[in-house]
Amino acid sequence: MKLPMFYVDDIIKRALAEDINYLDVSTVYVIPEDAVTEAYFVAKADGVLCGIDAALRVFELLDPTFQATVYKQDGDVIKTGDLIAEFSGSAVQLLAGERTSLNLLQHMSGIATATNRCVRLIAGTKATVAETRKTLPGLRALQKYAVMCGGGRNHRYNLSDAAMLKDNHIDAGGGIAKTVALLRQKAGHTVKIEVETRDLDEVKQAVAAGADIIMLDNMSIDEMKAAVDYIGGRALTEASGNITDARIRAVAETGVDIISIGALTHSVKAMDISMKIKQ
Amino acid sequence: MKLPMFYVDDIIKRALAEDINYLDVSTVYVIPEDAVTEAYFVAKADGVLCGIDAALRVFELLDPTFQATVYKQDGDVIKTGDLIAEFSGSAVQLLAGERTSLNLLQHMSGIATATNRCVRLIAGTKATVAETRKTLPGLRALQKYAVMCGGGRNHRYNLSDAAMLKDNHIDAGGGIAKTVALLRQKAGHTVKIEVETRDLDEVKQAVAAGADIIMLDNMSIDEMKAAVDYIGGRALTEASGNITDARIRAVAETGVDIISIGALTHSVKAMDISMKIKQ
Amino acid sequence: MKLPMFYVDDIIKRALAEDINYLDVSTVYVIPEDAVTEAYFVAKADGVLCGIDAALRVFELLDPTFQATVYKQDGDVIKTGDLIAEFSGSAVQLLAGERTSLNLLQHMSGIATATNRCVRLIAGTKATVAETRKTLPGLRALQKYAVMCGGGRNHRYNLSDAAMLKDNHIDAGGGIAKTVALLRQKAGHTVKIEVETRDLDEVKQAVAAGADIIMLDNMSIDEMKAAVDYIGGRALTEASGNITDARIRAVAETGVDIISIGALTHSVKAMDISMKIKQ
Amino acid sequence: MKLPMFYVDDIIKRALAEDINYLDVSTVYVIPEDAVTEAYFVAKADGVLCGIDAALRVFELLDPTFQATVYKQDGDVIKTGDLIAEFSGSAVQLLAGERTSLNLLQHMSGIATATNRCVRLIAGTKATVAETRKTLPGLRALQKYAVMCGGGRNHRYNLSDAAMLKDNHIDAGGGIAKTVALLRQKAGHTVKIEVETRDLDEVKQAVAAGADIIMLDNMSIDEMKAAVDYIGGRALTEASGNITDARIRAVAETGVDIISIGALTHSVKAMDISMKIKQ
Amino acid sequence: MKLPMFYVDDIIKRALAEDINYLDVSTVYVIPEDAVTEAYFVAKADGVLCGIDAALRVFELLDPTFQATVYKQDGDVIKTGDLIAEFSGSAVQLLAGERTSLNLLQHMSGIATATNRCVRLIAGTKATVAETRKTLPGLRALQKYAVMCGGGRNHRYNLSDAAMLKDNHIDAGGGIAKTVALLRQKAGHTVKIEVETRDLDEVKQAVAAGADIIMLDNMSIDEMKAAVDYIGGRALTEASGNITDARIRAVAETGVDIISIGALTHSVKAMDISMKIKQ
Amino acid sequence: MKLPMFYVDDIIKRALAEDINYLDVSTVYVIPEDAVTEAYFVAKADGVLCGIDAALRVFELLDPTFQATVYKQDGDVIKTGDLIAEFSGSAVQLLAGERTSLNLLQHMSGIATATNRCVRLIAGTKATVAETRKTLPGLRALQKYAVMCGGGRNHRYNLSDAAMLKDNHIDAGGGIAKTVALLRQKAGHTVKIEVETRDLDEVKQAVAAGADIIMLDNMSIDEMKAAVDYIGGRALTEASGNITDARIRAVAETGVDIISIGALTHSVKAMDISMKIKQ
Repeated sequence: MKLPMFYVDDIIKRALAEDINYLDVSTVYVIPEDAVTEAYFVAKADGVLCGIDAALRVFELLDPTFQATVYKQDGDVIKTGDLIAEFSGSAVQLLAGERTSLNLLQHMSGIATATNRCVRLIAGTKATVAETRKTLPGLRALQKYAVMCGGGRNHRYNLSDAAMLKDNHIDAGGGIAKTVALLRQKAGHTVKIEVETRDLDEVKQAVAAGADIIMLDNMSIDEMKAAVDYIGGRALTEASGNITDARIRAVAETGVDIISIGALTHSVKAMDISMKIKQ
Repeated sequence: MKLPMFYVDDIIKRALAEDINYLDVSTVYVIPEDAVTEAYFVAKADGVLCGIDAALRVFELLDPTFQATVYKQDGDVIKTGDLIAEFSGSAVQLLAGERTSLNLLQHMSGIATATNRCVRLIAGTKATVAETRKTLPGLRALQKYAVMCGGGRNHRYNLSDAAMLKDNHIDAGGGIAKTVALLRQKAGHTVKIEVETRDLDEVKQAVAAGADIIMLDNMSIDEMKAAVDYIGGRALTEASGNITDARIRAVAETGVDIISIGALTHSVKAMDISMKIKQ
Repeated sequence: MKLPMFYVDDIIKRALAEDINYLDVSTVYVIPEDAVTEAYFVAKADGVLCGIDAALRVFELLDPTFQATVYKQDGDVIKTGDLIAEFSGSAVQLLAGERTSLNLLQHMSGIATATNRCVRLIAGTKATVAETRKTLPGLRALQKYAVMCGGGRNHRYNLSDAAMLKDNHIDAGGGIAKTVALLRQKAGHTVKIEVETRDLDEVKQAVAAGADIIMLDNMSIDEMKAAVDYIGGRALTEASGNITDARIRAVAETGVDIISIGALTHSVKAMDISMKIKQ
Repeated sequence: MKLPMFYVDDIIKRALAEDINYLDVSTVYVIPEDAVTEAYFVAKADGVLCGIDAALRVFELLDPTFQATVYKQDGDVIKTGDLIAEFSGSAVQLLAGERTSLNLLQHMSGIATATNRCVRLIAGTKATVAETRKTLPGLRALQKYAVMCGGGRNHRYNLSDAAMLKDNHIDAGGGIAKTVALLRQKAGHTVKIEVETRDLDEVKQAVAAGADIIMLDNMSIDEMKAAVDYIGGRALTEASGNITDARIRAVAETGVDIISIGALTHSVKAMDISMKIKQ
Repeated sequence: MKLPMFYVDDIIKRALAEDINYLDVSTVYVIPEDAVTEAYFVAKADGVLCGIDAALRVFELLDPTFQATVYKQDGDVIKTGDLIAEFSGSAVQLLAGERTSLNLLQHMSGIATATNRCVRLIAGTKATVAETRKTLPGLRALQKYAVMCGGGRNHRYNLSDAAMLKDNHIDAGGGIAKTVALLRQKAGHTVKIEVETRDLDEVKQAVAAGADIIMLDNMSIDEMKAAVDYIGGRALTEASGNITDARIRAVAETGVDIISIGALTHSVKAMDISMKIKQ
Repeated sequence: MKLPMFYVDDIIKRALAEDINYLDVSTVYVIPEDAVTEAYFVAKADGVLCGIDAALRVFELLDPTFQATVYKQDGDVIKTGDLIAEFSGSAVQLLAGERTSLNLLQHMSGIATATNRCVRLIAGTKATVAETRKTLPGLRALQKYAVMCGGGRNHRYNLSDAAMLKDNHIDAGGGIAKTVALLRQKAGHTVKIEVETRDLDEVKQAVAAGADIIMLDNMSIDEMKAAVDYIGGRALTEASGNITDARIRAVAETGVDIISIGALTHSVKAMDISMKIKQ
């Protein structure tokens, strides 16, 4: 389970281009060009690791002599003090790439960690955790991959691969029944149709229309429970909106299939991981 | 004070390419291609706006007929319920661009808002707030701009425009004095030299070496105060590490010039802003 | 129903860069730079039009003064001699863009026309026509869009948005039942699962496993009929392999839902459309 | 005779980006990441191979451990059942790259095969076969290379490297003589000048003007013969328009030097080649 | 005679990205964002103008309100003090774009001016001036265009559009006669064949081989004269190597057709042109 | 001290794409694809080498078997006849890359050589030589790096990393004192502020305003001397404008810190270096 390297390389090159106009002025006059050094990544917090391939790839792109031994893989639970990877290479290039590498690793591990916390909060229920399309520009694949590493399951990738019918679509299409029927006839046969509902009446229409997935949007726990019971397995159910740590277990216990959480990707707290140069 | 459009356009096109493989399958069969609609952005939280040009530019790139009236500008304080901008255009394109537009606006406003909270916490002191190079890949310019909109002042853009001497540089260079002297002789004359220090002894060496900026790294309030007093204006002082809401005012009151905070850009909480389609 | 312009522009610029190293040597010394002329597209064969926006966009990118009146839209049936669009602009730029513009228009119309012929061959049955992932590098969105314009419905866009289980997956996963169950548990909830089958026994396993779509791969008409009857609506059915003009109606009459045809995009016959400069 | 790898890599990355948003959902949960497998390409039809380097390069870009043994080279005649190449690598990456690899190989081999059929149809005459600028966007180099592999000779690459004077140029330039003379004086000295003619009168003017190449456009066999005889070697002759299998030998026997055929690249029939995973 | 805008835009965006990481720090806090100003380009030296479209395009890309009146066109002879163009727009954007704009204008005008000096030095002879492939990375089209604006004629654009046989080719091909014959048979019919010669013996072989162009490489004036006389119009002749101001007229008077000069593009002296902001 | 490879690769690929549309027509039919050859770079003039990594990288990108032994490094003084590097690889690829490789090497060495000549002219004074932002589009990093290799020190990289206040800024800001104060308060703390002055009165204002650097623009030697004496070390001093070989030493002897010279990068004379293929 790795992201395609050609994809990650583009992101890394973009990040390096931001961080290096042409030379690292702190280093170029001070550190001998042929100095070789060893370094390592160490966890400074508990969490779930994600992005180790990308983080080490930064150095590979800067330094053909770079070599690493990896102790923790994407998806591994890590504790403060855990040694994640050891590596060696040009001192100049390790210093040049450090920030870009850590920015990737901390961001991706932050997402995996937050996802995993949600997954653990609902352990034992049948619900799973999903992210949304509220991702940061240029980082969608990385962010969705991190959710997966944290134990979540991915929502649709984008506007082209699954249908999500909201007010505006339903109004324009002449109601839930007509709109779902129209899409069923026109959209590709691999496209699932999800309908956003705000109350039990809409839920009933969505079931009748044969929606594949029914989103229960910003409902109370009781409304959600009633909706899930009414649906009775005739469609997948997705809880969305106002998902807090305090409330997530109650949401899961309504019996919904998926709980989608925008904050997993739009409000990421970086995980604290350090890179240490061995003296 | 606007980001160059050619720069923002690249980010938007990358985001749109992530979000649209080729067609918005929810919309293409349901909403008439020539339907025109009106919509607006409204604040769902208090904060500082940032990214309105970029957010509207998303629609311009999708729809040549798009038109907007802007009520709030980047840097403006906004309150829940404030109308930010009204606009009209192709319904199909407004739906296609909504998520990409909001992802930008919420992220940038989140940064401006967090920066501004820090700025207000230290109001009345001479200190200013700065971000670091802990930015997200491909988004550095946007993030640094957002810090500025929130009332912060930007730290160096990247490794090429100012020097920051850490342990590794200083060890390789033969101590603070020698390393600063070497850089002063070799680096470009527009490059400021910052030295990272961890105790008063290092501070003294940095002053003696003629550093332009002295970073007080992870010091206690008392250590910081002693350092600032010792330096006595002979260099700019930058407090870094462990800057919390609870502690930031005490840090500022030590008399430091700059307080740099990685979390401003590496752990962003999106600001809640909605786009509403008028019925 | 239009392809996003930012997407099409990239393809056009790539094509123009191939066709113009720096100047059109036939034109630059001969045609006055300020000469304005009129031209039009005319059908030289019967078919279904596709790509008119892209074709005209070529000239817009070369010439800010370019103006067009469009008589036929994407998806329209056209006959030999039909006037498709009239336009005017810089003579130099019309000559420079002619080939790039026609290459797009003829290719996309060729796909729409071939798709439409299949659609008409199975008219009255419940089956629909779909393309595959056998597309040309860099042209997938254009080709899938053209299939849609010809009356087809699109298959999955790529490897990330729907699952298609073949021998290798099923062998590695421990049989159809186990593999489908594993995916159902792990893959995102918007992902449909299709299972490729070669005989009735596999079909039965796929139904039991709860596949969303069952591909009937290279089956005889009789086998296909038996499979469709057995499935009885418990999954969508897709006929694939050896779909010829002679056989397509019999395939459709087995009751399958989708007939997928690689040749729609991998073996395209360009539609004959001319651009004429008015004297 | 190989295409530059940096050029091919761009096309492959574009194709992979189309085919993989971020993960192959069929494979990622089912096939072990460290599974290694062997596979091969086998011809399912007779023809001329083209694109084997590009096809294998797809896997190299996905999998640094990929290794291949190549039995047939570009330009080789292949028969149904021929083993083209054997290779081994990560099972996950072989499945991920299969379609992209085959799409390139089948398209390029399709062009080489069609070109070669024309070349064999005119064997023994002095004529050679050439493609035109009717190529697919972004694929011109690949397509022209495939024509060469099939035994054809390439026409001009683009508008910048040779001049082709048509009606519009000649009208603007004041007739064939004046236009050729003007170009001879102004265009670079490496630029050959071709004149498009429709009858013997124009042929005579083109000869008198000193054209390097005279295109005989849509002429009957008799007209063509008369033109070739008249020209008598004073210019190269190119037959163009309405070149069918039935007619091509007669065209060649008129004595023309080049027969150019747009369909070689605008209406390609993919050659059937399979990739088989060894069990 | 204009370079395609899509081509120039890429170069400009690359240059702007080099010159602006995210904001012009001198301007952003000082000049009001809505300040509008007028400015103009004025010649500070005599020469030939080139690049005015590209130079003004810089501002158009930064500022949608930018407007210009152009007094001198590419190819025009200009004198110190001549007003080249007047324009108005955002003061912030005029300052941001000034350097990028002038860098283009001064470089291209420098090439046109140097070319034109050579052209004037050989006025009255039949020789023309050409550049070589000794161009700067990423700027070939701009540089070749500038040579044309200065009155030169362009040599081949690149390795793909004309053949130039040097020692290594001729040795590998088995001598001049065989190598030319081989290429004549294999290379596309629009490809001219040039043979590099160093003495009269090689010239004779090249004539016998039917070369289209014969390069007289680093010959003395006498050798060149003898070669031109021997060739007697049976091939175009190109003088190359050691072309100085002092020697160029003598070279031209030998009767050669083309004099190619690498320094036109590899050793450019920028032309002095200023941009003045009106107070 | 090396430029980041990812950066150089982009420039090389752009250059190769300019020089090879798809095949080197002189070589492809003549030189056997598997021919291996040896070659070397030799200096044809005295100077300072720069760009050897980039020059050899061209061949690495074309030929995975390429191997080189490097005798002279960037920054080394070289004499006519010096052997710079020896290498071996595919004959076809060495011929294909020769021009692109040399174009880089000659341009960068030309800059290093010119810079070094200036550095030697002022040897013994305390002044150093700097380039400006008058660089060629897309080549800024390469050019600035070459200046450094020649013994110069780099001026600001771009508009974002240091402030340079000219007339227009000062007029808009309300005079030197106010403008510097405003920037000091708003701009990032790593940003140095340079003020452009034309006479002693402005110099005095700049000193009073606390400018970090004072540019003495187009002053006479006497004015410069007076300015340097007045400033007395309170700011760095930069001489700019009209810096000729004849005058540079006198400028340096005024005691200025930096002498900036636009011609180092805008008017480059390529250094003569040859590549020889061993027979």
